[in-house]
Amino acid sequence: MARFPFSAIVAQDEMKLALLIAAIDPAIGGVMVFGDRGTGKSTAARALAALLPPIAVADGCRYYCRPEEAGSCPDPCHSNRSVKVAVPFVDLPLGATEDRVLGALDLERALRAGEKAFEPGLLAKAHRGFLYIDEINLLEDHLVDLLLDVAASGQNIVEREGLSVRHRAQFVLIGSGNPEEGELRPQLLDRFGLSVEVRTPNALEQRIEIMRRCAAQEADPEGFAAAWQDEEAKVLRQIARGQKLRAGLVVPDAVMADISALCQAVGADGLRGELTLMRAARAVAALKGAKAVRREHALEVAPMALRHRLRRDILDETGSTVRIERAIAELFG
Amino acid sequence: MARFPFSAIVAQDEMKLALLIAAIDPAIGGVMVFGDRGTGKSTAARALAALLPPIAVADGCRYYCRPEEAGSCPDPCHSNRSVKVAVPFVDLPLGATEDRVLGALDLERALRAGEKAFEPGLLAKAHRGFLYIDEINLLEDHLVDLLLDVAASGQNIVEREGLSVRHRAQFVLIGSGNPEEGELRPQLLDRFGLSVEVRTPNALEQRIEIMRRCAAQEADPEGFAAAWQDEEAKVLRQIARGQKLRAGLVVPDAVMADISALCQAVGADGLRGELTLMRAARAVAALKGAKAVRREHALEVAPMALRHRLRRDILDETGSTVRIERAIAELFG
Amino acid sequence: MARFPFSAIVAQDEMKLALLIAAIDPAIGGVMVFGDRGTGKSTAARALAALLPPIAVADGCRYYCRPEEAGSCPDPCHSNRSVKVAVPFVDLPLGATEDRVLGALDLERALRAGEKAFEPGLLAKAHRGFLYIDEINLLEDHLVDLLLDVAASGQNIVEREGLSVRHRAQFVLIGSGNPEEGELRPQLLDRFGLSVEVRTPNALEQRIEIMRRCAAQEADPEGFAAAWQDEEAKVLRQIARGQKLRAGLVVPDAVMADISALCQAVGADGLRGELTLMRAARAVAALKGAKAVRREHALEVAPMALRHRLRRDILDETGSTVRIERAIAELFG
Amino acid sequence: MARFPFSAIVAQDEMKLALLIAAIDPAIGGVMVFGDRGTGKSTAARALAALLPPIAVADGCRYYCRPEEAGSCPDPCHSNRSVKVAVPFVDLPLGATEDRVLGALDLERALRAGEKAFEPGLLAKAHRGFLYIDEINLLEDHLVDLLLDVAASGQNIVEREGLSVRHRAQFVLIGSGNPEEGELRPQLLDRFGLSVEVRTPNALEQRIEIMRRCAAQEADPEGFAAAWQDEEAKVLRQIARGQKLRAGLVVPDAVMADISALCQAVGADGLRGELTLMRAARAVAALKGAKAVRREHALEVAPMALRHRLRRDILDETGSTVRIERAIAELFG
Amino acid sequence: MARFPFSAIVAQDEMKLALLIAAIDPAIGGVMVFGDRGTGKSTAARALAALLPPIAVADGCRYYCRPEEAGSCPDPCHSNRSVKVAVPFVDLPLGATEDRVLGALDLERALRAGEKAFEPGLLAKAHRGFLYIDEINLLEDHLVDLLLDVAASGQNIVEREGLSVRHRAQFVLIGSGNPEEGELRPQLLDRFGLSVEVRTPNALEQRIEIMRRCAAQEADPEGFAAAWQDEEAKVLRQIARGQKLRAGLVVPDAVMADISALCQAVGADGLRGELTLMRAARAVAALKGAKAVRREHALEVAPMALRHRLRRDILDETGSTVRIERAIAELFG
Amino acid sequence: MARFPFSAIVAQDEMKLALLIAAIDPAIGGVMVFGDRGTGKSTAARALAALLPPIAVADGCRYYCRPEEAGSCPDPCHSNRSVKVAVPFVDLPLGATEDRVLGALDLERALRAGEKAFEPGLLAKAHRGFLYIDEINLLEDHLVDLLLDVAASGQNIVEREGLSVRHRAQFVLIGSGNPEEGELRPQLLDRFGLSVEVRTPNALEQRIEIMRRCAAQEADPEGFAAAWQDEEAKVLRQIARGQKLRAGLVVPDAVMADISALCQAVGADGLRGELTLMRAARAVAALKGAKAVRREHALEVAPMALRHRLRRDILDETGSTVRIERAIAELFG
Repeated sequence: MARFPFSAIVAQDEMKLALLIAAIDPAIGGVMVFGDRGTGKSTAARALAALLPPIAVADGCRYYCRPEEAGSCPDPCHSNRSVKVAVPFVDLPLGATEDRVLGALDLERALRAGEKAFEPGLLAKAHRGFLYIDEINLLEDHLVDLLLDVAASGQNIVEREGLSVRHRAQFVLIGSGNPEEGELRPQLLDRFGLSVEVRTPNALEQRIEIMRRCAAQEADPEGFAAAWQDEEAKVLRQIARGQKLRAGLVVPDAVMADISALCQAVGADGLRGELTLMRAARAVAALKGAKAVRREHALEVAPMALRHRLRRDILDETGSTVRIERAIAELFG
Repeated sequence: MARFPFSAIVAQDEMKLALLIAAIDPAIGGVMVFGDRGTGKSTAARALAALLPPIAVADGCRYYCRPEEAGSCPDPCHSNRSVKVAVPFVDLPLGATEDRVLGALDLERALRAGEKAFEPGLLAKAHRGFLYIDEINLLEDHLVDLLLDVAASGQNIVEREGLSVRHRAQFVLIGSGNPEEGELRPQLLDRFGLSVEVRTPNALEQRIEIMRRCAAQEADPEGFAAAWQDEEAKVLRQIARGQKLRAGLVVPDAVMADISALCQAVGADGLRGELTLMRAARAVAALKGAKAVRREHALEVAPMALRHRLRRDILDETGSTVRIERAIAELFG
Repeated sequence: MARFPFSAIVAQDEMKLALLIAAIDPAIGGVMVFGDRGTGKSTAARALAALLPPIAVADGCRYYCRPEEAGSCPDPCHSNRSVKVAVPFVDLPLGATEDRVLGALDLERALRAGEKAFEPGLLAKAHRGFLYIDEINLLEDHLVDLLLDVAASGQNIVEREGLSVRHRAQFVLIGSGNPEEGELRPQLLDRFGLSVEVRTPNALEQRIEIMRRCAAQEADPEGFAAAWQDEEAKVLRQIARGQKLRAGLVVPDAVMADISALCQAVGADGLRGELTLMRAARAVAALKGAKAVRREHALEVAPMALRHRLRRDILDETGSTVRIERAIAELFG
Repeated sequence: MARFPFSAIVAQDEMKLALLIAAIDPAIGGVMVFGDRGTGKSTAARALAALLPPIAVADGCRYYCRPEEAGSCPDPCHSNRSVKVAVPFVDLPLGATEDRVLGALDLERALRAGEKAFEPGLLAKAHRGFLYIDEINLLEDHLVDLLLDVAASGQNIVEREGLSVRHRAQFVLIGSGNPEEGELRPQLLDRFGLSVEVRTPNALEQRIEIMRRCAAQEADPEGFAAAWQDEEAKVLRQIARGQKLRAGLVVPDAVMADISALCQAVGADGLRGELTLMRAARAVAALKGAKAVRREHALEVAPMALRHRLRRDILDETGSTVRIERAIAELFG
Repeated sequence: MARFPFSAIVAQDEMKLALLIAAIDPAIGGVMVFGDRGTGKSTAARALAALLPPIAVADGCRYYCRPEEAGSCPDPCHSNRSVKVAVPFVDLPLGATEDRVLGALDLERALRAGEKAFEPGLLAKAHRGFLYIDEINLLEDHLVDLLLDVAASGQNIVEREGLSVRHRAQFVLIGSGNPEEGELRPQLLDRFGLSVEVRTPNALEQRIEIMRRCAAQEADPEGFAAAWQDEEAKVLRQIARGQKLRAGLVVPDAVMADISALCQAVGADGLRGELTLMRAARAVAALKGAKAVRREHALEVAPMALRHRLRRDILDETGSTVRIERAIAELFG
Repeated sequence: MARFPFSAIVAQDEMKLALLIAAIDPAIGGVMVFGDRGTGKSTAARALAALLPPIAVADGCRYYCRPEEAGSCPDPCHSNRSVKVAVPFVDLPLGATEDRVLGALDLERALRAGEKAFEPGLLAKAHRGFLYIDEINLLEDHLVDLLLDVAASGQNIVEREGLSVRHRAQFVLIGSGNPEEGELRPQLLDRFGLSVEVRTPNALEQRIEIMRRCAAQEADPEGFAAAWQDEEAKVLRQIARGQKLRAGLVVPDAVMADISALCQAVGADGLRGELTLMRAARAVAALKGAKAVRREHALEVAPMALRHRLRRDILDETGSTVRIERAIAELFG
């Protein structure tokens, strides 16, 4: 099935913004997408990955080493050549076993050559790209914890079956979930950088527009892709500019004070909210081509950086958003 | 036991229509059949598969590759010859283990030749045909999820036992279930394209007619088949015409607006209801040999496309149907 | 321990009639026997199997192929010779593992010759005979389901451990259960053709007669068998005549209408009740040497064909029987 | 630790009588002993086994075949010589695994010679002797069921791990349990032939006598054994006489009528109570050297044959005994 | 870490007395120590074992056979030489698997030599010494049962993995537990010979003295050991004398009557209380160098022999002790 | 990711003090850190380990033997040479299996050479360093128990898979937990030497300072490290001096009396509180370069040594701290 263009997605602006921020600063810590089935969550994530330019990897490296880091993986890769490959997008299949996620003993080599070799798993495949987990609330807490640990540290450490291996695994974790199907523990939620909510559009024109675009793509995928090519290029240029600008942007003390005041006002636990909001403000400023990080940048992304960190009423997401907006109005109003 | 002819099935018109729609547009997403045991659910599905004309496959291919796609499967098949085989109908046996459903490591080859080869499972056997799951509500959610994922994507991705394989698995999923025996989660239900309800006929003549036909077939299977041959051919011609017509049919904006209005009126969650209803309307129009998709086509299939997507009262299927009919009356009545 | 003669069983007429019907038309779908322990349920089933004349099988065939079907089993058997063996009676031992029931990979051959061969299980051993399951309510639903599936289709399909085997397994399933120990799900009950109830006789003379016969058989098994030889022969002739007559008996439309009316009056779910009652009426007519199936034949077996299919009050078996008798009285009384 | 002599056991007359009856007619179906810990349940069972004269077995047979049945076991044993061995007494160790109870694949031979041989388990070791299960209520129902099946049929049928073996396993099953620790299901209880209750003696003299005998045995085991030698010989002669007499004793119709009337009066379910009581009455008559079975014999053993078969109030054992005694008084009093 | 001297333990007199009794008569049946963590339970048990003189074993025997029993173990040991080894003290490590406790198939030999050899476990290592189980209430009932069985019979019988081994395993079982963490079943408690309670001392001087001694030992282990050498030797002489005296001591009938009367007065279930109290009275008399067992000896140890055997209120240990003391006062007051 | 300097951690003084005490006297028994996520618990522990000077180990020893103990490990290491390695810091990865924690059979060697060799696990890797367990309350009690046992004894004893190995494993156990996510059992808590609470700073300046330092380190890790070099050296000197002083410090009787009085006043169970507080007072005196241990040293660390040992209200940590402070005020006012 041909990918749906990122820019052809109707509405869902908050989700698209969160994905763009993660593309600009992957260290933001993953994006959690809450919402009903059939609202295009997975479509958007795939579309963004497909849109990004290919990456350079050490030729033949099973761990997608950056050419300048060649030799640092467990194999290790010694190739001088570098090749371009598409940005990895790994969709954690339901029923994937823990050994395939983490990697495991290579049984074939163990049986043939009698040696204990490591066979990289899905975490290795996601290095430098995206790891998408649909219905993350159906996954065992244990596995979610593990994935968040790896996503946060950028390293996969495997200690099992007599193996002791570590390799880089830097990816943007995208989880989707339906709040009606079961909750993530607050402790897990807190470790996601951003969270967004998607809903089925209510406006009749939007709904008809979605049907129209789906029918159009189904009828003529190539034609549809061609029609959206310019829009896609525009998004890509925006990301590239953002990535370049971000490193140079400093968050002024005044904005840091705003951020801290807001976090305290809404009662976001721990310091993770502040640090994430600081990073997200910088990323969104870069995305918009701003020369400096301003309060407005922080306020724009405050809901997605904080709504899943509020004490209590975490089940009532609307409530969280409203509480953040009210605090913004009171503090900076 | 000889197959019962599709056209000899007494009553049960909605179920037969849903199966015909799935035969015309397999992308519709599966059919869920609710109803009491002993109402011929499995009989109808088998009858339809037996009725369809054989398909062409690359000779010797374990994955039933289309001749024009030969070489695309994991083996890969390089045969130039194409052969005709019956449309696959796989009845998921109770107690089939996950490895036999997905496919698994071929232990025999692993032990003999020391190589890690993939042995295709039931999902591969169902490619281009039907996968029937009796009492799907007794299956673990986990497995149902997996089957729906494969049915939706048309691909089986296996990541286990050190294997990493993907192959085409395009089939019409037909599930049957008894609402009294346990419910599917709304999230799973929503992923079925259509749902129908079958009940034991109440009319005495119908019941006697059923006994009469069963006794007749049991006493003389060949004679019975011969007696229904003409009816069967008529259905087959209707399907063939429908498949040809469907691709060319466009859904006018006005009908799309009707569909969207109806979905919103009944409160069908997400956009899946609209997209499915659009497809089902097109298929039923094609089945009837219509030149254009009209509102009446959409309204005819609205109950089967929407009844399992309504919020609340999902347990009360009659209620859902009535709510849809009431909304139709109010909107278009 | 010597078998107790079928005809020496005191009282328990309904159970004996149900077993005779199953012997005449094995397609009736199994017999479920409810009742207290110590009422001779297992004794009667074993006695009937021991009474039946030996069957002809392809010599050496592990699947007891009929000589005229030789070559159709997985082995396959190519013998021209046919031999006579006793009617199989398999008593599912408690603790039999699923692989021994279904059959499984032959580990010995796998290890020695490195080939994946199938070792037939208890289902194969029961082909053309009886499969007796004591306390079926203690079995896992999953396994009961599986056994009923095989009993209904007459085929055992094994999809596990990399095996994909199918062989004939046509047997009369006899389950016994104590309603106080746990219930079968209505869905499973419905799949049994007939159900009977046995109770400890209350009449003092009957109870003493039972003790007397047990003591007599225990003291002198051969003498006891000799004393009942004539009675046994009489039953055997009755079965043989019934088997011959059954095929030629037609159920008149009027009797079908009676059956349908009765089923609707008592509210038996689905059509299975009607089809089973039609078959049972034909079998009992054949057993009695009747020239035609008459309403009285249907009414005699109505309780055993329908009592386990009534909605509600399924726990109260007496109630079911009374409801059926009342309906008979009202309709035909 | 030296065995305690059977005749030196203080009080506990009902338990001792039940064990003697089982020694005279092992087909009685096992003895269930209820009572507090520390009342000598296991001591009595071991003492009886140690007292019995050795049995003749086919030399070298792993299945303790009777010399006259040599060749009938799975090995098979072909020895002409017969040897004498002590009556087997197997104490089911806690934590014995199912494979050790039933017997299992002999792994050593499987690995060395590549052949599938059977290694007999504890059931084989108990053949022709006693199988003692302490705290039977802590065993899984499943295993108890299995042991009772084997005890009742006298055959161990193993269908697992690709094995299909059957061998004789005729033993007296003795279970002990503490009603406070958990109940056996009525269905399992009913399958024990006899049940007795033991209590800590209340009489001070009895309690001191017990301490005295324990101290005496502990201080000088040989001397203690010698002191009780004559008493032991007396019991042994009584058993031997009883075994000889039993076969020739007929239960008169009048006594059968008494038995049946009593069972019906107390409401013992099924016919097992009557058959067991008939056998127990015969055995106790033989034990006492009577020429004929009389009503008094039946009444003496009625409590132990029936108390565990009464409906309801099964938890209240005292109540059961009283009900039986009351019924005896009313009927025959 | 150097052992703490037994005699340097501050207070805790009842626990120390119970351990000395077990050292004098290991057949007493184990000691259960209840009390808070940090009260030196494990320290005392280790200290006693370290204090005892070495034992003579058949040289090289894996089962610590007594030289006079050489050849009786499964290996068997045929050495003529005897060597001295320290009294075994086995501390059941948390997470020790059942196979390491019981012993198991020696996999190395099985794989190398293809023979089924037994590798002794911790029970064999504890033979003739102590088996200490910390927090016995956290162990599975099943394993506790097993350990108590072995401790009581002095034999370890292994029936698993195709092994059938028995060897001597005579040890003093010492369990420690915290009543707040979960209870042992009364049935298990009853099988311990003695039970004692330890509490944190309340007296300030005792608490400071404990800190002082700990600090002193930590600062200079050798010096501390030297300082307590004389006290340790005194205890050792007391034990040796007690072991010698015990065998010759007879419990007079009058004391037996006292014991029985006391047990009945407090309602200790079964006869185990009486037998244990008789043994403990003899042991304490021997420990004190008495020429005869007197009532006072029995009364001194009555609380530790009986408190865990009282019906009801078993959770309230203080209550049990008080009830015993009250009964003593009333009877012998 | 570059380590964050220990001295650059803003606030959190109690946690930092507890870690320094553990560095000076590793026998203190581990540190439990309670607090919200995102408060830098893991950062501080890692920072301290990175700060400590390298240790000398026997060259090539897999168990990090001290050069003066070479030859004492299971391998054993016989190297004369000693090398310097960084202080081990093991972060127990989520999902580490028990065999990787304890060590296990080396399968590779077992398969290749047929010998049973031990492969050391994470406990061996942590020897002489730190073992950090994040969210220890999510670990199974069983594993926590095991880790505490090893931490307390300084030895890892493995009895499984036919292995019987023991090696040194002396490390500081640091556990972190969130009281909202589940509690440790009081029994486990009590075994930690110290416990501290960390909270998100409330002061706006502190929060902004944290953001500033994080941003600074992220922007220029080397520069940041250089800026804090002097502070780090100061801490290191303080630790070195403390380690040297500690051994020579005696706790005067008067201070012991103070400690005991305080423990009794707050009702700390057992003697562990007193012993730990005595050790912690000595360590903090050494850290501060004091010549003698004074009451003020004991009072300063009393909250961290006792707060997790108070009966009741253990869930309410603030309450515990307040109770300790109140007792201090009352006693020493």
